[in-house]
Amino acid sequence: MASPDPSTTATATVMAGIPATNLSLYRAIRFKVGDPAALLVLPMPGGGVERLLIIRDIEMERAKRHARADAVRCPADFEPAGGLSGDRETATAQSVAQCLVSRGVRSVRADRTLPLIFAHFIEQAGIALQCDTELGVLERRSKDSQELDWLREAQRATEGAMQLACETVARSKASADGVLVHDGAPLTAERLRAIIDIHLLTNGYENPESIVACGAQGADCHDHGHGQLRTGEPVIVDIFPRNRKTLYNGDMTRTVVHGAIHPEVARMHAAVVAAKRDAIAAVRPGVTGQSVHEATLAALARHGYAAGQPAQQGVAVISHGTGHGIGLDVHEPPLLAMKGPALVPGDVLTVEPGLYALGIGGIRVEDMVAVSATGCENFNTLQESLVWA
Amino acid sequence: MASPDPSTTATATVMAGIPATNLSLYRAIRFKVGDPAALLVLPMPGGGVERLLIIRDIEMERAKRHARADAVRCPADFEPAGGLSGDRETATAQSVAQCLVSRGVRSVRADRTLPLIFAHFIEQAGIALQCDTELGVLERRSKDSQELDWLREAQRATEGAMQLACETVARSKASADGVLVHDGAPLTAERLRAIIDIHLLTNGYENPESIVACGAQGADCHDHGHGQLRTGEPVIVDIFPRNRKTLYNGDMTRTVVHGAIHPEVARMHAAVVAAKRDAIAAVRPGVTGQSVHEATLAALARHGYAAGQPAQQGVAVISHGTGHGIGLDVHEPPLLAMKGPALVPGDVLTVEPGLYALGIGGIRVEDMVAVSATGCENFNTLQESLVWA
Repeated sequence: MASPDPSTTATATVMAGIPATNLSLYRAIRFKVGDPAALLVLPMPGGGVERLLIIRDIEMERAKRHARADAVRCPADFEPAGGLSGDRETATAQSVAQCLVSRGVRSVRADRTLPLIFAHFIEQAGIALQCDTELGVLERRSKDSQELDWLREAQRATEGAMQLACETVARSKASADGVLVHDGAPLTAERLRAIIDIHLLTNGYENPESIVACGAQGADCHDHGHGQLRTGEPVIVDIFPRNRKTLYNGDMTRTVVHGAIHPEVARMHAAVVAAKRDAIAAVRPGVTGQSVHEATLAALARHGYAAGQPAQQGVAVISHGTGHGIGLDVHEPPLLAMKGPALVPGDVLTVEPGLYALGIGGIRVEDMVAVSATGCENFNTLQESLVWA
Repeated sequence: MASPDPSTTATATVMAGIPATNLSLYRAIRFKVGDPAALLVLPMPGGGVERLLIIRDIEMERAKRHARADAVRCPADFEPAGGLSGDRETATAQSVAQCLVSRGVRSVRADRTLPLIFAHFIEQAGIALQCDTELGVLERRSKDSQELDWLREAQRATEGAMQLACETVARSKASADGVLVHDGAPLTAERLRAIIDIHLLTNGYENPESIVACGAQGADCHDHGHGQLRTGEPVIVDIFPRNRKTLYNGDMTRTVVHGAIHPEVARMHAAVVAAKRDAIAAVRPGVTGQSVHEATLAALARHGYAAGQPAQQGVAVISHGTGHGIGLDVHEPPLLAMKGPALVPGDVLTVEPGLYALGIGGIRVEDMVAVSATGCENFNTLQESLVWA
């Protein structure tokens, strides 16, 4: 197919939003700011494109130094005939439309994240707007070497927090009634979360509420857990912190038991570890997320476990997919689940099979892997046993 | 004007996105989750509306208990003929369109934050979509009593961190060459930020990088500051943490000097404090954000200071507006600046005049106020002097 003539099509690409929260925009410009901004990829008369960043005036100098853009402007540089709104987001959207008009752009391609106010002002200016629902999705999935380094670094920090958390559980004392005691006071899910949070903060990470789910609480795979931790019960610890500078996330899970391990808990754990191993062995370019999940299901089935929702006392099932893409979002495409798409080099994925049983609780073990040219690299090195004493 | 007949117009309102980052959606449902969701306000045959929340399947039970919605469904409940995508966000957008079709909706009103992928699938289903750029803006500005409580609480926590920070500076020792020393080591901007961060984390707040800008660094009002703090120089401390449960933000600034205060710094500080007082005195319903900013400018002018960018050694200017709305975002409408709109009861605002001079640095003092029926309530009680010893 012949490539279109830019002088007749004059199609620009627009991304917009607040870079601190629109992470597709942040990734494109690698510049974090809490005010509205827009990146316009404009066709040039002689061919090629110009990446023009429109950003709040007082951020322009910093953006010129650090942002990935050919030129940096502010909304006041593109004031429409009726003037700019006194509202910062509206003014940014107005200036985007005005800039496109001044450059003779007649159609715009936008990604799925574009806030509707930008589409509104672009269309009001008589410019056709097309949503390309796949634009940016594969780009964000295929991590470059800088992103892989940042994700490795995040997972390393997550492993440090995990080791601290699991050892804190395992090395606690148990009171006569089975409650764990740490530093003279009952060890609760809330206290363990605070220990994890402070460790991560001092290493440069912010940490959304970790899952610390003890015993029966763990049967609901999204119960974050509360109250006292007890000896002889599995404690799911799931930590997913974000590096405060790079914004990339770690994500891992281990399950720890203080004291005696119930035989069914040990059996569930062995099945989950085998499923994680088989799922990771299946990860390579071209294989679908669904196939990886099927490897998990097959391994669990060999151990006598099926998929479903926990419904019967003591009968363990897997109640979720095998994992998800991770990067700037903790959850991002692709899914390792039914309908999950073919994997590509640079996909970074969690692999996190789990088993959940009413009355017993949950077992989950989670690593992070990166799809390579021929297979995958596991970013985790920490042990996966239930025993951390 | 007669109200439209819902049976013929069948207009629904749609909000969508990830509630943890689309804060307009979070505010509407008061339910935080990191996966895509949508709130459909659907006209009912007999009049009235139904608030239907579409959310990831495993979050449904939690949402039924806690989210502000009449009904909770998941994407699989609204599968189109061609099936749902294996991508979670695409599937959510597809299910929104399918739900609207099944309810006979022919037009949709959406707010400015709607991600374009939702508009795309709604329009593909043959439903007209209108962006109402003002929808939700006044609603978010007019804080209800729960929100005012949460903002008061956030500002109280911010004051605790501020007092700790300013007293840490003021009570440090100065080495022979003027560098501040705290606990046996030089007190740097980075160390003071870590002290602030840990204090806030233990009180339930996450804290984006605070501004700790000493001396000449403070002349750029958005320089976050780095390196050693020194005696005899103004240190701007600007802290804006977010409550981890409510997601509402605090935001305040004080300027502290260790040791001797330069006469021009004292003069700048007196002008800034007077400007803050006059600006707050101007805040009431119906007054524009521009008028409040003009009160700031008038007070500074009476002290001999004008607006502009710092350009001349030792000549102080104000280089930004007076303040901004605050709530779920640290920066949200309205602006207290030129073109700022009329204030409404429930607006919560920062009032933060500052003066900046090359070679000297910056002075900024910032409170948070809520517009009441007749004036405003100042959420701050902490002293505003340069002296904290």
